[in-house]
Amino acid sequence: MDSIKSDFQRPDGREFDELRQCRVYPHWTSNPEGSVLIECGGTRVLCTASWEDQVPSWRAGSGLGWVTAEYAMIPRATGTRNSREGGKNSRSQEISRLIGRSLRMAVDFEAMGECAVYIDCDVLQADGGTRTASITGGWIALKEAAQWALKNGRVAKDFIKHQISAVSVGIVEGAEVLDLPYAEDCKASTDMNVVQTESGEFVEIQGTGERSPFSSSQLSFLLDLASKGNKELQIKQREALA
Amino acid sequence: MDSIKSDFQRPDGREFDELRQCRVYPHWTSNPEGSVLIECGGTRVLCTASWEDQVPSWRAGSGLGWVTAEYAMIPRATGTRNSREGGKNSRSQEISRLIGRSLRMAVDFEAMGECAVYIDCDVLQADGGTRTASITGGWIALKEAAQWALKNGRVAKDFIKHQISAVSVGIVEGAEVLDLPYAEDCKASTDMNVVQTESGEFVEIQGTGERSPFSSSQLSFLLDLASKGNKELQIKQREALA
Amino acid sequence: MDSIKSDFQRPDGREFDELRQCRVYPHWTSNPEGSVLIECGGTRVLCTASWEDQVPSWRAGSGLGWVTAEYAMIPRATGTRNSREGGKNSRSQEISRLIGRSLRMAVDFEAMGECAVYIDCDVLQADGGTRTASITGGWIALKEAAQWALKNGRVAKDFIKHQISAVSVGIVEGAEVLDLPYAEDCKASTDMNVVQTESGEFVEIQGTGERSPFSSSQLSFLLDLASKGNKELQIKQREALA
Amino acid sequence: MDSIKSDFQRPDGREFDELRQCRVYPHWTSNPEGSVLIECGGTRVLCTASWEDQVPSWRAGSGLGWVTAEYAMIPRATGTRNSREGGKNSRSQEISRLIGRSLRMAVDFEAMGECAVYIDCDVLQADGGTRTASITGGWIALKEAAQWALKNGRVAKDFIKHQISAVSVGIVEGAEVLDLPYAEDCKASTDMNVVQTESGEFVEIQGTGERSPFSSSQLSFLLDLASKGNKELQIKQREALA
Amino acid sequence: MDSIKSDFQRPDGREFDELRQCRVYPHWTSNPEGSVLIECGGTRVLCTASWEDQVPSWRAGSGLGWVTAEYAMIPRATGTRNSREGGKNSRSQEISRLIGRSLRMAVDFEAMGECAVYIDCDVLQADGGTRTASITGGWIALKEAAQWALKNGRVAKDFIKHQISAVSVGIVEGAEVLDLPYAEDCKASTDMNVVQTESGEFVEIQGTGERSPFSSSQLSFLLDLASKGNKELQIKQREALA
Amino acid sequence: MDSIKSDFQRPDGREFDELRQCRVYPHWTSNPEGSVLIECGGTRVLCTASWEDQVPSWRAGSGLGWVTAEYAMIPRATGTRNSREGGKNSRSQEISRLIGRSLRMAVDFEAMGECAVYIDCDVLQADGGTRTASITGGWIALKEAAQWALKNGRVAKDFIKHQISAVSVGIVEGAEVLDLPYAEDCKASTDMNVVQTESGEFVEIQGTGERSPFSSSQLSFLLDLASKGNKELQIKQREALA
Repeated sequence: MDSIKSDFQRPDGREFDELRQCRVYPHWTSNPEGSVLIECGGTRVLCTASWEDQVPSWRAGSGLGWVTAEYAMIPRATGTRNSREGGKNSRSQEISRLIGRSLRMAVDFEAMGECAVYIDCDVLQADGGTRTASITGGWIALKEAAQWALKNGRVAKDFIKHQISAVSVGIVEGAEVLDLPYAEDCKASTDMNVVQTESGEFVEIQGTGERSPFSSSQLSFLLDLASKGNKELQIKQREALA
Repeated sequence: MDSIKSDFQRPDGREFDELRQCRVYPHWTSNPEGSVLIECGGTRVLCTASWEDQVPSWRAGSGLGWVTAEYAMIPRATGTRNSREGGKNSRSQEISRLIGRSLRMAVDFEAMGECAVYIDCDVLQADGGTRTASITGGWIALKEAAQWALKNGRVAKDFIKHQISAVSVGIVEGAEVLDLPYAEDCKASTDMNVVQTESGEFVEIQGTGERSPFSSSQLSFLLDLASKGNKELQIKQREALA
Repeated sequence: MDSIKSDFQRPDGREFDELRQCRVYPHWTSNPEGSVLIECGGTRVLCTASWEDQVPSWRAGSGLGWVTAEYAMIPRATGTRNSREGGKNSRSQEISRLIGRSLRMAVDFEAMGECAVYIDCDVLQADGGTRTASITGGWIALKEAAQWALKNGRVAKDFIKHQISAVSVGIVEGAEVLDLPYAEDCKASTDMNVVQTESGEFVEIQGTGERSPFSSSQLSFLLDLASKGNKELQIKQREALA
Repeated sequence: MDSIKSDFQRPDGREFDELRQCRVYPHWTSNPEGSVLIECGGTRVLCTASWEDQVPSWRAGSGLGWVTAEYAMIPRATGTRNSREGGKNSRSQEISRLIGRSLRMAVDFEAMGECAVYIDCDVLQADGGTRTASITGGWIALKEAAQWALKNGRVAKDFIKHQISAVSVGIVEGAEVLDLPYAEDCKASTDMNVVQTESGEFVEIQGTGERSPFSSSQLSFLLDLASKGNKELQIKQREALA
Repeated sequence: MDSIKSDFQRPDGREFDELRQCRVYPHWTSNPEGSVLIECGGTRVLCTASWEDQVPSWRAGSGLGWVTAEYAMIPRATGTRNSREGGKNSRSQEISRLIGRSLRMAVDFEAMGECAVYIDCDVLQADGGTRTASITGGWIALKEAAQWALKNGRVAKDFIKHQISAVSVGIVEGAEVLDLPYAEDCKASTDMNVVQTESGEFVEIQGTGERSPFSSSQLSFLLDLASKGNKELQIKQREALA
Repeated sequence: MDSIKSDFQRPDGREFDELRQCRVYPHWTSNPEGSVLIECGGTRVLCTASWEDQVPSWRAGSGLGWVTAEYAMIPRATGTRNSREGGKNSRSQEISRLIGRSLRMAVDFEAMGECAVYIDCDVLQADGGTRTASITGGWIALKEAAQWALKNGRVAKDFIKHQISAVSVGIVEGAEVLDLPYAEDCKASTDMNVVQTESGEFVEIQGTGERSPFSSSQLSFLLDLASKGNKELQIKQREALA
C-alpha cells in the first residue's frame, strides 16, 4: 500500500500503515466470565464480560439473548486528571452505545437464549484509540464468556457468529495513517473509526472531518488502511483465545 | 443511477433515489436570530439559532467564535409517548454532538470573532431522519443568524464558509434507498447518515450495520445516493434563504 | 365595562378588556390523539394529548381515568436563550400541576374508565400568558382525544363534562387589563390567572400582588374582566372543534 | 357572619369561622437571627430566618435587599412516612415560591440594603395548613431578623413595611369553613389560601376547585372568612414579638 | 477517674468526665409510632420511629424484621446556614449508616417478624455530638415503637434485646474529655464516637486522629470516659421511657 | 501471639495472625505522578496520585497544601456485577472520606505549599479489605508523587512526615483473625479497620460489632493483631519505593 503523502514522519517512528504494539492478557481478573486486559501502544483497557441468566425485562419472552456495553475512564487515565464520571458523561455514553452495537453484530441471539452479557470497558490508561481497543478487547471477553457458557451448560453451542475488531485511521498533516496515538489524534484533520468482521465487511464506520471535509478518494484509502489493521488485530484476538 | 435491487417497493411509492417532500419555513418564530421550521416528509423540526456576544469561558481570549447545538424531542413526536427528556438522554446528547460538530465545519471562527451561536433543534414530529433534518435546517438557521450578525454590525463579513446538509441512506430488504422514513428505518439492515458540503466532500459519515455487515460496494452505492440527496437539499436551503 | 383608570395606553393599542388575536390550529401534528397549535398574540404553544389504555399504577383498580399535564419551554421561546430544562425546573413543574388540576375538572373519570390522557404543552414562542394558553389549548387537545376515544371504541360516551379555558388579568400602571403580553406582565403590580368553566364558575384563581397588595374592589373588577375573556376564548375553542 | 350552610359539624367542634388554637414560640433555636416554632392546631412548623451580608450575585449592585424561602417536611410529619425530599419535590418548591413571594411583599428592599434573609420552614408535624402556617410564622422570624439587623447595625431602620399572615379557607360538604385541618382538607370541594396585609389587602389568593367549580358568591364568603382569620393571626404575631 | 492532663479548662466549665445536661421529651410529635426530642447541651435532635408492616423487598421472605435510619440537618441548625441537603450529602449518609447499624444491634429480628422501623433523625440545632445524640434518642424512639407494636398486636413480645447509647470523647489540648460541644470538637486532635450496650460492650468505635495519631494508653483512657458517659445516658433513656 | 480461640480453620489455610500475600507494582501506569497496583490476596486496587499546582478555592491563600481521595469499584470487581457507580454511592463516598482523612495525616501541609494531590483508588478485583488496601497502596502513590514533586522543583523538601498503612482485623466464629478475605468478612461478628503510623500509633480505628457487641479484651487482642499486620505492610511499602 502506498501512502498518498509520504513525507509525514510519525512521532513514534511507525510506518503509515503499521499498528502499534498490541498485547492481550486473557482472564486478567478472575471474577468475571470473561476478562481481558488489552494494550494498544499506550492505551490500556480492562474489558470484562458478565454473564446473566436473564435478559432485561423489555426483552423477556422473546427467546433471544442480549449484549450491552459500558465504557468509562478512570480519572487519571489521561495526561491531566478528569473528574470521576463513572460512564455518565455524554462522550462515554456515546462510546458505550457504539461498543454495544458493534458487539451485538457478533452474536447469534437465538443460540444464546434468554441470557445477557454485560461488557464493561474501563480505560486504565489512554493514548488514543480507547473506543476501538474496547471493541477489540471486548470481543475477546465476550468470546471467553461464550466459552464459559458452553462449558457450564448455559448454551448448547457457541453463539458467536462473527469475529469483530476495530481500529482508528485518520489524516494527519495530509497523510493517511493507521492506529493514531493521542499525539496524532489531536491534530488529525479527519478521524475515523472502523469496525469490521473477519471477512472485512463493515459493522460500523464513523468518519469525521474534524478540521476540514474529506474526499471520496481519501475515504477509500482510509478504509483500505483500516482493513489491513483489523486483519492484523483479528490474528491477535485468535492468538489470545488459543 | 441504478438500484442494485429494484424489486423493493417503498411504502410511500417513492423511487429508491428520491427525497421526501422537503418544505422550509424561514423565520418561523420571531425571538431567535435564526429560526426555521423544516419538514422532510412527516418529520418536522424547529431549528433556532441564538446569537451571544461572548463565547464559553474555556474559549475566551482565543479570538475565535463558537457554535454548538442541542437536540431534543417533544414527548409525543413519535407514535407512542416518551417521557420528557429535554435533551438529556444519551441518544439526544449523541445527536447534539453530531449536529454541533457538523455545523462547526461551516464556520470561519476567526471571521466570527469571540461570539457564539447556539443551535436548538426541537423535533415536533418524528418520522425518520430527525438528525439529518436538524443539520439541514440548523444550517439555514445558522446562516440566518450570520446574516443578522452582519446586518447588526456584530461581524464584518459573512462567517459561513461552507454550505452543509445531511441526509440518511440505508439498505432495506436488500435495496439501497435514499431518505428513509420511520417505516423503512426500523427494518433497515444498514443505516447511514451522511453530512456533506456544497462540493460533495464529506463532513461526517456514520454508517451502522444494524442487522448485518455491509460490503465495500454497498458502501459506494449508498454514498452516491447520499450525494444526490444532499445536492437537492442544498438547493432547498438556498431557496429558503433567497 | 368601564376601566377604573382609563389613561393607560396599552403598548399594542388594545382596549383594556380586549383579548389578543387568538388562532387555533387543530390536529397540527398527526401522531397524537389530540394536537393543537394555539396562538394568543405572540405566544405560541403546541398542546398534544396522548391516550393510554391504562392508568398509573397508584390509580389501578379504581375504575377511574386520569389526566395529567406537562409544560415546558424550548430554550429560545423567549427573548434571550434559557438553558434547556425539559419541564424540570420548579416554575415549569408548578405550571404543569396547574394545567393538570384545571383539566381534570373537565373530566368525568367514571365515563373515562381506567384510561389516561397525558397533555404536553410545549411553548414554542413566549409573549406572556403561556400557562393560560396551555390550559385553553390543552382543553381542545383533550377534547380531540375524547372524540378519538369515542370513535375508536375506547369509551362509550364523551367523558368531557365541562368546557375549561383560562386567561390572565392584571393591574398595570393602576389600570386593570385583560390578557397581558410580556411587556405588560413584567411591570404589572398585580397578576392573576383565572380558569373558568362554560358557566363562568371558577376552577382556579391565582392572584399575586407582585409589587403591591390589591383591594377587594380591584379583585372584583379583575374577575369580571377574566369572565369576559374566558367567554370569548370558549367560542374560539368550540369553533376549532367544529 | 352567617354560614351559608350550617348543618355541617366540624370534626373538632369548632365554629365555621373559628381558628384552631395558635401558639407561637419565638426565638425557639438560638443560632438563627430569627427562629419561631409555630403551632396551628396539630400543625407545627419551625421557621428560621438567616441573615446574610450579601445578596445573590444576580442582584448585586442593585442597592436592594432580597428575601427568599425554602419549605420542606420531615419524613414523618404526616400520618404515613414519606421519603425524605429535602424541599426538592415539586410540591415543596411550589410552596417555597409562594412563601418567598408573600414575604417579599413585607419588605422595603431599599431600606434593607444589599443584604439577604433566607427563611427556612421545616414542617415537624402536619395537620393541614402547613403553607399558611409557614407564611404566618415566617413573617415573625423575618421580623425578628429585622430587629436583629437594626440592633446590630446592619440597617439604619426597620425594613418591614407590611405585616403579612396567611390562612386557609374552603368548602366542605357545602359549608364554607376557616382554617381547615387535614381531616377537612382532604374532602374539601374548594380549597383556598389567602395571604393578607395588616389592612386586609390581598397579597396572594390561590383558590382551587378540587372537586367542583365554585361561584362568585362562594368566593366572596370565603374571602370574608379569610379576612377574619388573618386579623386574628396578626394579633398573635404582634403578641409573640412584644 | 483521673484526667491525664488536668490544666485544660473546658469552655462551659464542666469536669473532663462530665456529660452536658441531657433532656429527653418522649412522644414529642403524635403521628409517629415513636417520637423523641432529645437535647444534649445545645444539640437538639428530633428522632421519630415509623413502623411499617412490611420489610424492603430484598428482605421479604426471610421471616426477619428490619431497622434503618436517616439523618439530616435543617439548614440553620448550625452557626451559618448550609444549603438544604435532605440527608443526601455524603456526611449525612455516612452518619445515617452508623445510626442504622448501631440500632440494628438492639433488635431481635426474629421476634420482630417481617416488619420494619424507619428511624429519622432531624437535627434542629447543632452543637457537637449530633450523631451520638441521634443514636441515644433514636434508641428511645425505637423502643417506643416496639412498645406500640406490642400494644397493637403487631408483635408477640418486646423485640428490643439490647439498650444502646452513644457518646463522643476526644483529646483537646492534650486532655481527654467526655461529650464535646462544637467549640471543643473543632480543635480536638482526636475525636471518637463510642456506641455501647447496657453491659458496656462495644457496638461501634470510630476514632480518628484529626490532627495527630493517638497512642494505646490514650485510647484506653478515652474508652473509660465513654463507658462512664454511656452508663449515665442509659439512665436518662430508662427514665424517659418510665 | 496466641489466638484466644484456636480451633477455627481459615479457608485459605493461613495462621490467625498471617497477612495474605501482598504484591506492589509501583509506577504501574505512566500518566500519573504516582501510580501503584497493589494486590492483597485476591484484592487488586489501582491507586494513582495526581499532582496539581493549586489547592481547591476554599483553601487558597492559606499557604497550605491539600490531599483528598476518591474510591470506586468497577462493576465486575465482585462476584456478581454491580451497576456502575463511579464513586457516587454512599458506601464509596464514606470510604473515600476515610482514605483522604488517613492520608492527610501523612502530610506536612506547610512543606507542601499551596499544591494538591488527588488519590484515586479504583478497585479492579475485590476480595475483602479493599479500603485498607487502598490506604496502603494510596500512601505509596502519594509518596511517589512527593518524590516527583521534589525532583521537579515543586517543593523544597519531602512533605511526607508519616508512613501510613491499614489492615483489617475481625472476629470469625469466635476467633480473632488478621486481614480478612471476603469469605471471612461476610460472616465476621466483629469487623475492624485499623490505620497506623510507622510507630504504631493510631490514625483511625473503625470497629463494628456486625452481629454482636465485642468486649474490651477482644478489642485489645484485635488491636495487637492489627499492629503486627501494619508493621509487615510497611516493610512492603518501603521495599516498593526502594
